[in-house]
Amino acid sequence: MEIDTIARNQTQEIQALQDTIYVLGGKWRLPIINSICNGNKRFREIERSIPGITTRMLSRELKDMEANKLITRTVYPDTPVLVEYESTDYCKTFSPIILAMIDWGIAHRKKVAE
Amino acid sequence: MEIDTIARNQTQEIQALQDTIYVLGGKWRLPIINSICNGNKRFREIERSIPGITTRMLSRELKDMEANKLITRTVYPDTPVLVEYESTDYCKTFSPIILAMIDWGIAHRKKVAE
Repeated sequence: MEIDTIARNQTQEIQALQDTIYVLGGKWRLPIINSICNGNKRFREIERSIPGITTRMLSRELKDMEANKLITRTVYPDTPVLVEYESTDYCKTFSPIILAMIDWGIAHRKKVAE
Repeated sequence: MEIDTIARNQTQEIQALQDTIYVLGGKWRLPIINSICNGNKRFREIERSIPGITTRMLSRELKDMEANKLITRTVYPDTPVLVEYESTDYCKTFSPIILAMIDWGIAHRKKVAE
C-alpha cells in the first residue's frame, strides 16, 4: 500500500505536536519551567514569579515534574530545612518553545497597544 | 524604588508567556492551526487529521477561532453547500511555536525509542 508523503508527514507532525502538548499538559508547566530556568529555586520564589498560580497547583505540578525528571528537588537539612528546585538538562530542551512563546507574547502585546 | 533589571525582564517574560498560553488556550488549538496551515480546509478533513478530537470540540474551537480572527470561514452556496476554513496571516504568526513543538515531539519520540 502506497502512502502519500505529504499525508505521512502531516500525520507525524500532528503526532509530534500532540506529544509535546501532552508532556507540557496545562497552562502552568511552561511558566514554572521558565521560572526555574530563570534561577528561581525556592517554592515561594517560584510561586511569587507566576501571577495567578495557587500554592496547591504549584505543589502538585512540582511533584509531577520531579516524577517526570523535569526538575530535581534537593533538601538541605539545615534549620529551617531548605528545599531547592533545579531544572534538568531534559527540562532545558523546552527552551526553543518557551522563547518562541515569549516572542509571540511580546509582539502580541505591542500589536494590541498600537 | 529601584527595580532590578533581571527581575523586570522576568516579569515581562512570564507575562508574555502567559499571554501566549492564554490565546492558545487548551490542547486543541495548535493542532487545528497546524492542520489548516497544512492545507486542510473542510470540517471533516480537519477532524480526520487530528487524532482524538470530537466533532463537538472541533466545532466549538472553529467558531471561537473565527471570532478571534485566527481563521476565515467561507460558505460557497453550491448544492450541497461547501464550507471552507483558511488560516489568516495572524494565525501564521504561531508557526515558530508550532515548529519548535514539532521538533521537540520528534526528538522526544526518538529518545523514547532508544
